[in-house]
Amino acid sequence: MFVDKLRAAQRKNESYLCVGLDPDPDLMPHKDVVSFLSEVIDATKDLVCAYKPNLAFFEALGIGGMQTMLESIKGVPSNIPLIADAKRGDIGNTARFYAKALFDVYDFDAATVNPYGGRDAVQPFADYADRGVLVWCRSSNPGAADVQDVRIQDGGALYEEIAERAREWNEHGNVGLVAGATWPEQIARVREICPGQVILVPGVGAQEGELESAVQAAADARGDGFLVNASRGVLYASRAGDYAGNARRAAESLRGRINLTRDAILTRG
Amino acid sequence: MFVDKLRAAQRKNESYLCVGLDPDPDLMPHKDVVSFLSEVIDATKDLVCAYKPNLAFFEALGIGGMQTMLESIKGVPSNIPLIADAKRGDIGNTARFYAKALFDVYDFDAATVNPYGGRDAVQPFADYADRGVLVWCRSSNPGAADVQDVRIQDGGALYEEIAERAREWNEHGNVGLVAGATWPEQIARVREICPGQVILVPGVGAQEGELESAVQAAADARGDGFLVNASRGVLYASRAGDYAGNARRAAESLRGRINLTRDAILTRG
Repeated sequence: MFVDKLRAAQRKNESYLCVGLDPDPDLMPHKDVVSFLSEVIDATKDLVCAYKPNLAFFEALGIGGMQTMLESIKGVPSNIPLIADAKRGDIGNTARFYAKALFDVYDFDAATVNPYGGRDAVQPFADYADRGVLVWCRSSNPGAADVQDVRIQDGGALYEEIAERAREWNEHGNVGLVAGATWPEQIARVREICPGQVILVPGVGAQEGELESAVQAAADARGDGFLVNASRGVLYASRAGDYAGNARRAAESLRGRINLTRDAILTRG
Repeated sequence: MFVDKLRAAQRKNESYLCVGLDPDPDLMPHKDVVSFLSEVIDATKDLVCAYKPNLAFFEALGIGGMQTMLESIKGVPSNIPLIADAKRGDIGNTARFYAKALFDVYDFDAATVNPYGGRDAVQPFADYADRGVLVWCRSSNPGAADVQDVRIQDGGALYEEIAERAREWNEHGNVGLVAGATWPEQIARVREICPGQVILVPGVGAQEGELESAVQAAADARGDGFLVNASRGVLYASRAGDYAGNARRAAESLRGRINLTRDAILTRG
C-alpha cells in the first residue's frame, strides 16, 4: 500500500518533505540530467519521504526522456515512494492505459491525476489498490482560480466539489489530493472535507507558499496525512558550486521547518 | 497554421473524418503495432482530414512506446495534420514543458489539453501560434457529468464556462475545443459560445455517438469548423482477415455519412 510505504518512510527519515524532480535545462548546473539528479538524490535521500518526478520535464528532453527518468531515479532507496507527477486524465478506456503506463510500465508507487473527466477518469488508477492516486484539487498557479474557484449552484467552489468526489472515489483507501501551498485556507477546506486522506502540498519554494500555514492546514488531527513538495527550491538551491550540498541544506531546512510546525500542532492538540 | 492545414486536408480529401490511433493489444489483429497502424494509415490516408495518436496507448506499450508512435505515423502524408491526444494540463511552468514535448520534440500539429488548471495551463500551448490547441470541454464518457455538468452560480454548466474561457484564450486564433459525440445538445451549446473555433468531436463508433446529430451540432454556419474522430470503429472494424480493407470501408462509410449531413446543412442553410 502506498499510504503505508509513505508513512514508514516518513517515520524512518523523520520527514514530510517530498523532493520534486523537474530537470530544467535552463536551471541545471550542467547538462547531464542523470548525473545531476543522481547527485541530488544521493545528497537528500535520508531527508525525504518521497521523490516526485515531473513527467513533463522528462518528456521535453526528447524521445529518450523517460529512459533518462528511469536512469535518474535508480539511486532512490527502495523504501522511498516514487510519485509520478503526471496529471493524466481522460475517459475511462484511455485512463486505463495511462494507469497501465504509470503503474505497470514505470512501477510508480503513486500518481497525480486530473479530475476533469469525472469518476471514470480516476477509477482505473484507483483500481490499483496498492498504488496511490492523488487527485489534482486546488493548484498553486494564478490561473487556477479561473476554473477551480468557480462557485457552484447551492454549493461552494468547484475544488470543494472535487474534494467531495475524491472522498467518494476513495473506496480502496488509496485516493488522496493535491492542494497547493499558496492557498492555506483552501488546503484547510480540503482537509475538512477529506479528514482521512493524504494531501500532497506542492508550491513550496519557487512558488513562495507559506510553508508553516500550509502544514497547519494540511496536517490531520495527529499532525499526519500529508507531504510537502519542493522542487526548484531544493534542486536549484544553488546553480553552481556545491549544488548537491546546497540541495541537502535546503532539504534539511525545509524538513526542519515542517517538523517544528508539526511539533507545535501536536503540543497544542 | 493548424487551422489552415486542417482545412486544406479537408478539401483535398473531401473529409471531416479524423482517425484515432489507439493501439490496444487486446483488440489488434496481430501484435506488431508499427505494421498494424501503418497498414491502416495506408488504407485510409486519402479518406481522412487528420490522424490522432492517443498517447496513453503508446505510453502503455513500454519504455519505447513513443518511439513506436513515431515509427507508426511515418506513412502519414505531410499534408495531413497530426493531433496528439494527450489531455495534458498542469501549472504554467510545467505546461510549458508539456508543450515543448508535444510541439518541439514530437512536432504535432495540434494537441488536446485539459483546462482544469485554468489559463496558465493552456497558454504555453496556445503560445505556439502555428499549432492547434484543443481544449477538452465536454467529454463523451458517462463520468463526465460528475464534473463538467456541475451547475455554476448564476450561470450554466461548467463545460459552458470552459467554452467561454476557451473563446477568451483564442487570442492567436489557434484554440479549439473537444466535445463528445454522445451529447449533441452540449456540442450545439459549445458551437453557440464559440462560433468561430474548431470543434473536435470524438466518441463516434465504439462509444455509439449519434453521428448525424453530432455533425449538425458541431458544424458552423458554412458546414465547416469541425472534425469527427473515430478510433476503434475504424481500427478494429474487423479484428482479423482483411482488417485494413475493412478499416478503409468503415472510414469511407463514416466520411460519406458526415458529408451527406453537411450537404443537408448547406442546402437547408
